[in-house]
Amino acid sequence: MEIRKPYLLFLGDAPDQLAVKTAAGVVDWRRDWCVGQMRLPGCEADVGLEDLDIAGAVEKGAKTLVIGVVNAGGVLPDHWIDVIIEALDAGLDIANGLHVRLGDVPRIAEAAKANGRKLHDVRHSSERFPTGKGVKRPGKRILAVGTDCSVGKKYAALALEAEMRAQGLDADFRATGQTGVLIAGRGVALDAVVADFIAGAAEWLTPAAAADHWDVVEGQGSLFHPSFAGVTLGLLHGSQPDAFVVCHEPTRKTMRGVTHALPTISQVIDATIAAGKLTNPDIRCVGIAINTSALGEAEARAVLDKAAAEHGVPASDPVRFGMASIVERLIEEFP
Amino acid sequence: MEIRKPYLLFLGDAPDQLAVKTAAGVVDWRRDWCVGQMRLPGCEADVGLEDLDIAGAVEKGAKTLVIGVVNAGGVLPDHWIDVIIEALDAGLDIANGLHVRLGDVPRIAEAAKANGRKLHDVRHSSERFPTGKGVKRPGKRILAVGTDCSVGKKYAALALEAEMRAQGLDADFRATGQTGVLIAGRGVALDAVVADFIAGAAEWLTPAAAADHWDVVEGQGSLFHPSFAGVTLGLLHGSQPDAFVVCHEPTRKTMRGVTHALPTISQVIDATIAAGKLTNPDIRCVGIAINTSALGEAEARAVLDKAAAEHGVPASDPVRFGMASIVERLIEEFP
Repeated sequence: MEIRKPYLLFLGDAPDQLAVKTAAGVVDWRRDWCVGQMRLPGCEADVGLEDLDIAGAVEKGAKTLVIGVVNAGGVLPDHWIDVIIEALDAGLDIANGLHVRLGDVPRIAEAAKANGRKLHDVRHSSERFPTGKGVKRPGKRILAVGTDCSVGKKYAALALEAEMRAQGLDADFRATGQTGVLIAGRGVALDAVVADFIAGAAEWLTPAAAADHWDVVEGQGSLFHPSFAGVTLGLLHGSQPDAFVVCHEPTRKTMRGVTHALPTISQVIDATIAAGKLTNPDIRCVGIAINTSALGEAEARAVLDKAAAEHGVPASDPVRFGMASIVERLIEEFP
Repeated sequence: MEIRKPYLLFLGDAPDQLAVKTAAGVVDWRRDWCVGQMRLPGCEADVGLEDLDIAGAVEKGAKTLVIGVVNAGGVLPDHWIDVIIEALDAGLDIANGLHVRLGDVPRIAEAAKANGRKLHDVRHSSERFPTGKGVKRPGKRILAVGTDCSVGKKYAALALEAEMRAQGLDADFRATGQTGVLIAGRGVALDAVVADFIAGAAEWLTPAAAADHWDVVEGQGSLFHPSFAGVTLGLLHGSQPDAFVVCHEPTRKTMRGVTHALPTISQVIDATIAAGKLTNPDIRCVGIAINTSALGEAEARAVLDKAAAEHGVPASDPVRFGMASIVERLIEEFP
């Protein structure tokens, strides 16, 4: 599954900026892949691209319409379906970050078939995976893990990829969630895979590679999250990381969606090494990525300095201070 | 999902006894639910029940035809389809332990619909689960965990249920695999659930209950199996066991399907407690179930005595020596 580039980002009639978070993520990390945005009357969101219609986007070379907006109530509105069909008729593929499967909408399925176009439902997995084998593969891998869900693992991994490339490393982001898949143009939404194949899907996503190649793997959930730890563990075993970065949000008190307290960074480091060494005995922590957006500059620096001192690895906020220190440590550890 | 009893066990034209392992498991544990077996010409297997055809089974009150035989190559033979349709026409539901979904076979789907009958594809999950919440529920739970896949976790859990009932406890086996579901008449094949919902499915399977009620939960995989540990962890978190039994096969050298060495029983106890306390801080090991079938009597006793001494809990072979000592320990620990 490879989504053809470049993209036209469909924002629909999004009521606010939060509704187009997916499109905004694509623009943040892959602006070069985007020819423009398409907004319908009433749209209150803007991701800063040129406004285009389908014909205008095709003229600029667009290959895929990316539905980068959430729909209220999970139902695809009729006037969105009209746009999707217009796009298919104009020769575009569709990449869909919504829960609904485009192929389940008969008009869309027919138009895709008639035009020979692809429908990418990135929240669903159409790929058949083998079960994981746990055999060590050549190539290197670094995984973003977290004290919780939604603590910036995707952002940290993308920032790592960018900084690793800037420092001359051969690095590729590997997406494990739906927004990540749209940003990478490929990948697998791991939470949608059948349970028996979590580790196998992670192996498929991070295949054997050149000895100095790095896969930078988007993490999912947390080993300490009572809803999703199974996904986290399967991803850890399957991606067999050489190195990992712990992502953390210091003001959060309970884990997302449940009442459990957050684990400490130390607990996450210890649990990740204990479980991860099953498929990579040399696994080690090379940095801590802390989302300090809720803190002032001085307080943020203090939190990062404390974390670095406590755990003996560089700590940074990927947005505020970048990932240079962590990538330098990675290069030291893996010369 | 509740499979209607009693069953007619379909053995097809099984080439040998191994091919009817599922049917044999149902007879081992739920003979009272079986009115008979149905064999086709050429069948070389026998689970020791009266041979019946569909009409004869209906006369004896059968409500469900259980396909308790594996099919070569994963394809449903045409002459099996004929039998299934005859059963549907005679008013039976179908419970299917094969990978194939019966509803995907148009003739079967039509016959089920026409007769208003149910098709239970127990390897697939049609139930929609919420994500796990990790909230402590009333009632007690005991989980069979393992050093590997296929070390007797289902058998140990069923033997525990029988012995707990014999000792006066209120205990129900909770099935997490396809054979277990046929034996219990309900449950969920956890390995077929979408990854995000493993823990949620385990919570659904072991709901709030009376304070002195025990759910005896069939385990899956192993925390140390590189293919399936995610399923194991989600089941552990979702079932939030008060107690667990470690199942082990002492002659096995590498984990099933992979090249990894087996963990020790101590490693499994420690890892189960470390992970399990996230949703049940009082989790503890109450026994060790060892499959000693490859050992002579004296050697078996020596292995069990050594394990009991080493880990400070009773150790037994559920088949050879029963689960009385482990249930006695359970009652001591949870008076």
